[in-house]
Amino acid sequence: MPLLKVNRERLKRSMDQISTIGATPRGGMHRLALGDKDRQARDLLKRWCMDAGFPVRVDPIGNMFARRAGRHSDSPPVVIGSHLDSQCMAGRFDGPVGVIAALEVLRTLDDQRVVTQAPIDLVNWTNEEGARFSPPLLGSGVFTGAHDLDFALRQTDKEGLSVQQELVRIGYAGAGPVTLPVRKYIELHIEQGVVLEQAAIGIGVVTGFVGIRDTKVTVLGQSTHAGPLAMDSRRDALVGAAGMILAAREIGLAHGPDARVTIGKLAIPSDSHSVVPGCVEMVLDVRHPDAHRLNAVVFALQQRFRAMATDSGLAVHFEDSWYYPPVVFDSGLRSQIAEAAAGFGYSHMELPSRAGHDALNMARVAPTAMIFIPCRAGLSHNELEFAEDQDIAAGADVLLAAALAAAR
Amino acid sequence: MPLLKVNRERLKRSMDQISTIGATPRGGMHRLALGDKDRQARDLLKRWCMDAGFPVRVDPIGNMFARRAGRHSDSPPVVIGSHLDSQCMAGRFDGPVGVIAALEVLRTLDDQRVVTQAPIDLVNWTNEEGARFSPPLLGSGVFTGAHDLDFALRQTDKEGLSVQQELVRIGYAGAGPVTLPVRKYIELHIEQGVVLEQAAIGIGVVTGFVGIRDTKVTVLGQSTHAGPLAMDSRRDALVGAAGMILAAREIGLAHGPDARVTIGKLAIPSDSHSVVPGCVEMVLDVRHPDAHRLNAVVFALQQRFRAMATDSGLAVHFEDSWYYPPVVFDSGLRSQIAEAAAGFGYSHMELPSRAGHDALNMARVAPTAMIFIPCRAGLSHNELEFAEDQDIAAGADVLLAAALAAAR
Repeated sequence: MPLLKVNRERLKRSMDQISTIGATPRGGMHRLALGDKDRQARDLLKRWCMDAGFPVRVDPIGNMFARRAGRHSDSPPVVIGSHLDSQCMAGRFDGPVGVIAALEVLRTLDDQRVVTQAPIDLVNWTNEEGARFSPPLLGSGVFTGAHDLDFALRQTDKEGLSVQQELVRIGYAGAGPVTLPVRKYIELHIEQGVVLEQAAIGIGVVTGFVGIRDTKVTVLGQSTHAGPLAMDSRRDALVGAAGMILAAREIGLAHGPDARVTIGKLAIPSDSHSVVPGCVEMVLDVRHPDAHRLNAVVFALQQRFRAMATDSGLAVHFEDSWYYPPVVFDSGLRSQIAEAAAGFGYSHMELPSRAGHDALNMARVAPTAMIFIPCRAGLSHNELEFAEDQDIAAGADVLLAAALAAAR
Repeated sequence: MPLLKVNRERLKRSMDQISTIGATPRGGMHRLALGDKDRQARDLLKRWCMDAGFPVRVDPIGNMFARRAGRHSDSPPVVIGSHLDSQCMAGRFDGPVGVIAALEVLRTLDDQRVVTQAPIDLVNWTNEEGARFSPPLLGSGVFTGAHDLDFALRQTDKEGLSVQQELVRIGYAGAGPVTLPVRKYIELHIEQGVVLEQAAIGIGVVTGFVGIRDTKVTVLGQSTHAGPLAMDSRRDALVGAAGMILAAREIGLAHGPDARVTIGKLAIPSDSHSVVPGCVEMVLDVRHPDAHRLNAVVFALQQRFRAMATDSGLAVHFEDSWYYPPVVFDSGLRSQIAEAAAGFGYSHMELPSRAGHDALNMARVAPTAMIFIPCRAGLSHNELEFAEDQDIAAGADVLLAAALAAAR
């Protein structure tokens, strides 16, 4: 039997249509988890699935599952999908590519009247990004037991609205079991890096996840009025934090091409033009594929920050925020993905994921793998994020083949 | 006639009592303008004034005026006072010292049955700090025509609540004229610096205001995901801003002991642990007693920031936020304050104010002066802000004598 391919026109049409919901003027996406735009995107996905005859189940944390039945209705499903929520003013491919390609896989199997042994479930995970509710990967975290349902429902956004309130408001507070057995999990996603683009390779066979360790850093000085006190008598926490931000970059670069050190959140509680900051709060995000090297980077940063604080009469405190150790994906699924790519004649290579995805949670409960496709200049979490139609279609073809192999 | 002195016990009792409203665990004050605590403090002040027979008028922006009548009811009043609102988690002396001392002045004049020619008005200005509603000095700004009433009422806090809504909610949306003629304005305040403390001087005769220029600085790089893109390919706006924060301190120090450069507000719109910041917004606050030197500091900062941005592939934009040129206080009032201090045998010296006060607005419409008293270690906008009882009492004595001289 020749390898099945997805319907490229339908795939592109669906991508274009879902991309209008929350579209920004510069071609990006602003669709925060459980907001009105997320509701509209969920409603559209639900309608598409129902129209095609794939019943949709919503679980208590709002994860959406659309099922294409298999011969054995009792068999745990092969699950494929990703997320429809976005970061603030970000891109339209990060997440939706995996969800819409999964829908296209189900539709193509119907077109071709393919019967699988196991059911195949499309999934749309709740609050993958963590841009509105912390922590990220929330829906898959509840599904895989990383978080209690109650904990997740209690989380609030900046306005004090809880996950529970918002799920009820947008009509996605589902029922039924919080988790169910999964046969295999496969997620298609843009790379969000430049490895595939620079190698001119179309399909990334993801080997696993780099480890991620986040630390809350609090720099303490002395808050005072911006006018009277002489500048050389100040103990300015923001000046201290600025030195640490520059040191963080330097230490990250010094630990080689696999290390990433980022400060993406910084708050000054006093928040006034006329107050010398006495306190600055930052989040330090460190990533490395090797757990020991990861901890060495974190240790080096904390050592340096402590020394800098002492030198300038400041104090610094660290609080572990979260830690995802490095993950290695299922070797069988990786081989199937590589073989599928080769079968289609698509160039492919192995590479790790340096970003968190719901597959990180799923790898704890089921054989898991991911397929990456290139995105332009590695830009992501940015309105200018872009993936070519043919790369999305090739990724969907490989997802189809891998899901079929897993569900047979 | 011997010089009148205030009732020190009553002054201390009133200071202690008003300090309980919005008190923080470390002995500080959190009483944001037009919040519930500000309402309670206003209610207490109003009750004290009414009980003592000083009728209270509330104007359309919520400024409170309590009048002790003079012989000539048509004469413009001598106005004395300050503000009861505070910064976030700040001190309990910045503002209330001037209001409660003014109350004590009126009470002492009643005790001694002193008759003045002009009325003396105690004033409590609305939203001096600007911690909740921008701009600061809002109430005196409306009173002196620096801001339109409509503009002031439309300003909103972070939750989107307007000045107008909050004035109505707490019962301080007054009526009547927005402004009235003022004979003289005198404000007692803590120095918020270390000049008096280091010179061991009890009374500061304030010569005027340093100029203040605030600029919004926007640093633009490229927002991207914290994981995939190599660190040396990033254009991180926060790393760029960090260099500018250090340069701002260096340039401030290089411009001599009279220059102040502060960054007290910084926001990252993307605000996510996993997003390399593509944009950082800061407020640059520059102060200098000489207008030409002030502009030279601002120019040097902008030149340096532009060069730094260019060097690191970033962009930087500047937007003038506000400018208060330097102000020189009324020489007659300054002499009266110095003579009063000498009459009491209190040590005194001249010094400029490096912080903004409502007197800055009042100097545009009436002969104006300020009296400073020492505060410990120059700490202000800080919970540990502290002024000694005897310094507050000495300041109140001088305020009493200066007001009496002005109102005779």
